[in-house]
Amino acid sequence: MPTSVHPSAALGPRSGLPRGSRAVIYCEGQFGEQDGKTANGLVRHSERYEILSVIDSRLAGADSGQILDGHANGVPVLASLSDSIAHAGYLPDYLICGLAPADGLLEPAQRVVLLDGIARGMHIINGLHEFLNDDAEFVAAAMLANVTITDVRRPKAKRDLHLFSGRIFDVTCPRIAVLGTDGAIGKRTTATLLVQALNARGIKAVLVGTGQTTIIQGGKYGVALDAIVGQYCSGEVEEQVVAAFEGENPDVIVVEGQGALSHPAYLSSTHILRGSRPAGVIVQHAPKRVMLGDFPMMPMPTIESEIALIEAFADTSVIGVTINHEGMSDDEVSAAIVTYESELGLPATDPLTRPLDQLVEMVLHAFPALAERLLPSWR
Amino acid sequence: MPTSVHPSAALGPRSGLPRGSRAVIYCEGQFGEQDGKTANGLVRHSERYEILSVIDSRLAGADSGQILDGHANGVPVLASLSDSIAHAGYLPDYLICGLAPADGLLEPAQRVVLLDGIARGMHIINGLHEFLNDDAEFVAAAMLANVTITDVRRPKAKRDLHLFSGRIFDVTCPRIAVLGTDGAIGKRTTATLLVQALNARGIKAVLVGTGQTTIIQGGKYGVALDAIVGQYCSGEVEEQVVAAFEGENPDVIVVEGQGALSHPAYLSSTHILRGSRPAGVIVQHAPKRVMLGDFPMMPMPTIESEIALIEAFADTSVIGVTINHEGMSDDEVSAAIVTYESELGLPATDPLTRPLDQLVEMVLHAFPALAERLLPSWR
Repeated sequence: MPTSVHPSAALGPRSGLPRGSRAVIYCEGQFGEQDGKTANGLVRHSERYEILSVIDSRLAGADSGQILDGHANGVPVLASLSDSIAHAGYLPDYLICGLAPADGLLEPAQRVVLLDGIARGMHIINGLHEFLNDDAEFVAAAMLANVTITDVRRPKAKRDLHLFSGRIFDVTCPRIAVLGTDGAIGKRTTATLLVQALNARGIKAVLVGTGQTTIIQGGKYGVALDAIVGQYCSGEVEEQVVAAFEGENPDVIVVEGQGALSHPAYLSSTHILRGSRPAGVIVQHAPKRVMLGDFPMMPMPTIESEIALIEAFADTSVIGVTINHEGMSDDEVSAAIVTYESELGLPATDPLTRPLDQLVEMVLHAFPALAERLLPSWR
Repeated sequence: MPTSVHPSAALGPRSGLPRGSRAVIYCEGQFGEQDGKTANGLVRHSERYEILSVIDSRLAGADSGQILDGHANGVPVLASLSDSIAHAGYLPDYLICGLAPADGLLEPAQRVVLLDGIARGMHIINGLHEFLNDDAEFVAAAMLANVTITDVRRPKAKRDLHLFSGRIFDVTCPRIAVLGTDGAIGKRTTATLLVQALNARGIKAVLVGTGQTTIIQGGKYGVALDAIVGQYCSGEVEEQVVAAFEGENPDVIVVEGQGALSHPAYLSSTHILRGSRPAGVIVQHAPKRVMLGDFPMMPMPTIESEIALIEAFADTSVIGVTINHEGMSDDEVSAAIVTYESELGLPATDPLTRPLDQLVEMVLHAFPALAERLLPSWR
């Protein structure tokens, strides 16, 4: 274990954001679970909102960072919206719906809480597939309370969507996609940590998000891919990669993956590979996960089969494996790293518990030219 | 070449449909081309509409079957909507928009023709991505004229869409997917011919459509996959296959593919493979097509690479190759069949110019148990 600052500390909710961006996350019954992944992600990293607390009565009184990563971050989990407001001492600006159920739809008890937030004057940020701006009760409530509802997943009008154009072939910096063996397995967290670690060391990296959470977190380049019909998905990923390249002139672009190529339903990574055309892929895997998170009748793929599938599906190479340590002791993580490195011949690490230098090394090993960009203190 | 009835004759527009189903197809500038594929498909096969004529001034006076397949079918191509009405001698019930542009959007001149049809009292069938029921001008015109506009691609409400459930594992009859190396390459035509040929020989086969054209043609089981967000695509395919199995008790289910696994943008076949879990795949290829139809900066894949990709992506086997003869002489088709059969070790045929027995043999070779269902006259 590293003795320096814990990697997850770099991801904490940012304070010092302007007034008007303070938010409470509603995640009843699901915080820390796979279906709470939007909330989990925002607690770890948020550039747009200052996260004051998380609502989940099961875990009331706990520290959200302690629950997620075993390290307190000062953001409490509370029992109710009333408790969250009392804790803040004022009415927070936003109530973010941090649930991500497989069917993307709200249950009646969940509607009541969001409507309560509206009635109290909070703006709603909604990352569900269900658009609250299409729901007459929510629209009326928001009008009465003079607040806004933002449906993050609502796609652009068709006329504003992009078909694949081939402009990706003009992007001269390498792209690295962070794919995985299941949904809600840590792809976004690994991608975020990688971008932060590269930038800290002088290598200019830009994240292109592909899910609603990354967009709520405040990512500058991204598209909520699973809200768009398939025809435009490759083109929208390509468009965001081209925009990141032209807008930031980065040394490398990191692209967030979705689901898994082997997945029965969540196949957006097929479009991510075709649209971003990465030279390298990092694969995130949870060795102790037995069945797919949202599909408990389907076994997880092996890391070997997923790597073979990725390299068969696209003209790319897997450059390393990142481990999600759910259900693992620290010794088991160490053993898995050794096993993967010897059996797969690829670097492996757990970005949340091992030094981020290992994650950076994985990239430098595959793209040695990037090492020229390292700040002198990191060489 | 066979001396019996030409295969494409079996696909001709059905006459004798009830009054109230007579239709004209608008396909200005694109009939017979890749972007006219909805019109091309309807002229070849329609169970729901009686096709009276096709509008495309470039080809006015020609026979639509002659243009498509070199065999007259009695459905003329005419210069304008006025000519189509004059030719019919009465106002046809429907004006079907048979264009399928890559961006799915109407141009101004195309809008004028459809609005003219509405003003004359024709119902509109629209297979574009652009929903005319969302267009104020079309909605107002349809109300004034008391006609309906059907947006075939409009997806069901999210609450009515299906996630993958695993029910496909209870479907005991084999599924055969007809995939291809590009969009608009003949997958639907091959699938339709195969289903007809199998049924004619006593093997009960059901087609599950996955595109808007198959649905306009009148298919009982199908979903316009490219109008649905990715999360639900595998589940919607699965749902239609399960419905076909439970509703028809077939010997085999044939599933229409979309785009190509190697395609930069049209990747719906990834969901088709995951949702229908076919035991066998037929691959449709156009040997003389050099670049992708909608993406002229991208070269076509080889048949070898596409077969390898399909078998790497899914637990299935390619059972044969079907040839789209665009740009080929009959001798070249024969040579391609010989080459594919020897180099790939797979049966090959051109369903539109070779006896359909060859296509049926391809299936019986892979699924010999189906031969028990053959009518005595076909054994």
